[in-house]
Amino acid sequence: MTIKNDRLIRALLRQPVDATPVWIMRQAGRYLPEYRQVRKQAGNFLNLCKTPELACEVTLQPIRRFPLDAAIIFSDILTIPEAMGLGLHFAEGEGPVFAHPLRDHTAIDKLIIPNPAEALTYVTDAIKLVKHELAEQIPLIGFAGSPWTLACYMIEGHGSKNFALPKKMLYNEPTLLHKLLTKLSKATILYLNAQIAAGVDVVMLFDTWGGLLGYNEYPQFSLHYMQEIIKGLNVSQSGKKIPVILFTKGGGQWLPIIANSGCDAIGLDWTTNITLARQQVGGSVALQGNLDPCLLYAKPDKIVTEVQELLAAFGKGPGHIFNLGHGINPDVDPECVSVLVDAVHTYSKVYHP
Amino acid sequence: MTIKNDRLIRALLRQPVDATPVWIMRQAGRYLPEYRQVRKQAGNFLNLCKTPELACEVTLQPIRRFPLDAAIIFSDILTIPEAMGLGLHFAEGEGPVFAHPLRDHTAIDKLIIPNPAEALTYVTDAIKLVKHELAEQIPLIGFAGSPWTLACYMIEGHGSKNFALPKKMLYNEPTLLHKLLTKLSKATILYLNAQIAAGVDVVMLFDTWGGLLGYNEYPQFSLHYMQEIIKGLNVSQSGKKIPVILFTKGGGQWLPIIANSGCDAIGLDWTTNITLARQQVGGSVALQGNLDPCLLYAKPDKIVTEVQELLAAFGKGPGHIFNLGHGINPDVDPECVSVLVDAVHTYSKVYHP
Repeated sequence: MTIKNDRLIRALLRQPVDATPVWIMRQAGRYLPEYRQVRKQAGNFLNLCKTPELACEVTLQPIRRFPLDAAIIFSDILTIPEAMGLGLHFAEGEGPVFAHPLRDHTAIDKLIIPNPAEALTYVTDAIKLVKHELAEQIPLIGFAGSPWTLACYMIEGHGSKNFALPKKMLYNEPTLLHKLLTKLSKATILYLNAQIAAGVDVVMLFDTWGGLLGYNEYPQFSLHYMQEIIKGLNVSQSGKKIPVILFTKGGGQWLPIIANSGCDAIGLDWTTNITLARQQVGGSVALQGNLDPCLLYAKPDKIVTEVQELLAAFGKGPGHIFNLGHGINPDVDPECVSVLVDAVHTYSKVYHP
Repeated sequence: MTIKNDRLIRALLRQPVDATPVWIMRQAGRYLPEYRQVRKQAGNFLNLCKTPELACEVTLQPIRRFPLDAAIIFSDILTIPEAMGLGLHFAEGEGPVFAHPLRDHTAIDKLIIPNPAEALTYVTDAIKLVKHELAEQIPLIGFAGSPWTLACYMIEGHGSKNFALPKKMLYNEPTLLHKLLTKLSKATILYLNAQIAAGVDVVMLFDTWGGLLGYNEYPQFSLHYMQEIIKGLNVSQSGKKIPVILFTKGGGQWLPIIANSGCDAIGLDWTTNITLARQQVGGSVALQGNLDPCLLYAKPDKIVTEVQELLAAFGKGPGHIFNLGHGINPDVDPECVSVLVDAVHTYSKVYHP
């Protein structure tokens, strides 16, 4: 079956489109009152992730409101460590907490790579429900966290400004960290292939904490494992190609090596200049991004102006997927998203003659 | 009077040295047991800053332990907003909190630029004490926060992951934000000139949150005001030149424009490659940095290897000041600092033939 609105897929593969596709990181989220209602119904965030019907519902909510060019399955990057038995819990206003963080060889040695067909069916079931509901109108994006990013939370046990514990392991016990990252890569390959088999049309890797690594450490401890994952993915599925997006927050200084990782597109945060980024990657990959999420606090006319400027900064031709440079903030007015999406579609047409 | 060990000054001015100078951001700080004792004696962090004898004592503590090539006056970047009457308080384990954050035109309009000779004598008095104690053995660094960084705390009221409130003002009321930044620049010029008059030999601007700005916003909302400050400084003092270091955390994508700001040196965080940075600035400024602060959790031989690699990455010739890429973490073993400082002096000699 072909997807009716395939702008996203075409842009990711650098094929001509009629308008620049747009979707928004965390588009299914707290800024929507209907999301907050379902979350309340679910009791907590993890229950929401783990109940396919509810995950499907919140995935579709932004699609009903806005003419977005993609849906992204509602889930969390920490599903894999949760399936590994680390005891995930989301403390209200505090973010993720693991009851059993990894602190020694024994804990890492005994980690078992979860079989998605057993431990993660709630994700693949939600994907199947969403695919059915979307009825091939727009593509569905699946995702996972990068091994380094998962390792950060699993070792530290919770969010952190500098993730000192994983960094300690990196410098003092690099072999142990590599062992963990290898396990996480294998688990992620199985997980994303299960998502692909369940129907996702695009896959994205979220490397939220890659930008905390030193210049020489990033390629070894984060990018390398994302490359391993990309190599392991079944990207040819029933005759169609599944494009892969790689997003390292704070990754603007590594664009040339990210472009060579085998990904189809690089996600850019808002601190990177998309014109210079396009020059650096030389048309070898598509670029996704990269409006400052805080711009959605601005008045509509300012949002429109900034959308126009970003479209102009990328310039003519295919290979741009419009997005924020990071997830949408929970206190944004949904009306601003409407303004953004319409502006992208309206003002991008001139760049695709 | 000439400074006996003038490696830092010479390196900042890209003049030949016998070995690469080294100092450490937050070298007077919590990782030292003798610091924790004085802080306890002071009651709280702000009292410590405001008591010249104690600020002098903690400034000198790392100098007694390690053969560092500079002292940096013990103080805080938030002295200016404190002097403006925002009611600064340091909550234990929480960081700075302002009792009266800036939330509207009225609050910003009524801000008065503090006269350092009245409101900030505790800093200049501490500088005079330290200068006396140092007896021109090594130079003393004075510092201030960048206007954008101060504005972040003053508007938000406390630390934050994304400083949404100052960002809101940036996009919705840029004129109001510019008014605040202009006031802060003027206040900082007076403050740093008072520090220079009191005896500091080098001045550093800490732009901790410049890296949160969008690619196009950084030059207008952060760098511009640091340039204004540099223009306003009395950098020629009794026949000697006061070099200026500008440090934007997360600023690696703006190095060419930072190099043109009028500063003498750019501080680099650990995510930037110093070899590429040197190529980009083309010898127009010195470079300071940029070891990952978490490397001080490593074993001594690893620290030595990484010091050697960083020295090699900068390469031959003058213009490198060794430092971490951010402040030292409070749980680092002081012995590791000793290893670091000795390694820099020992292994840098070959690069200064």
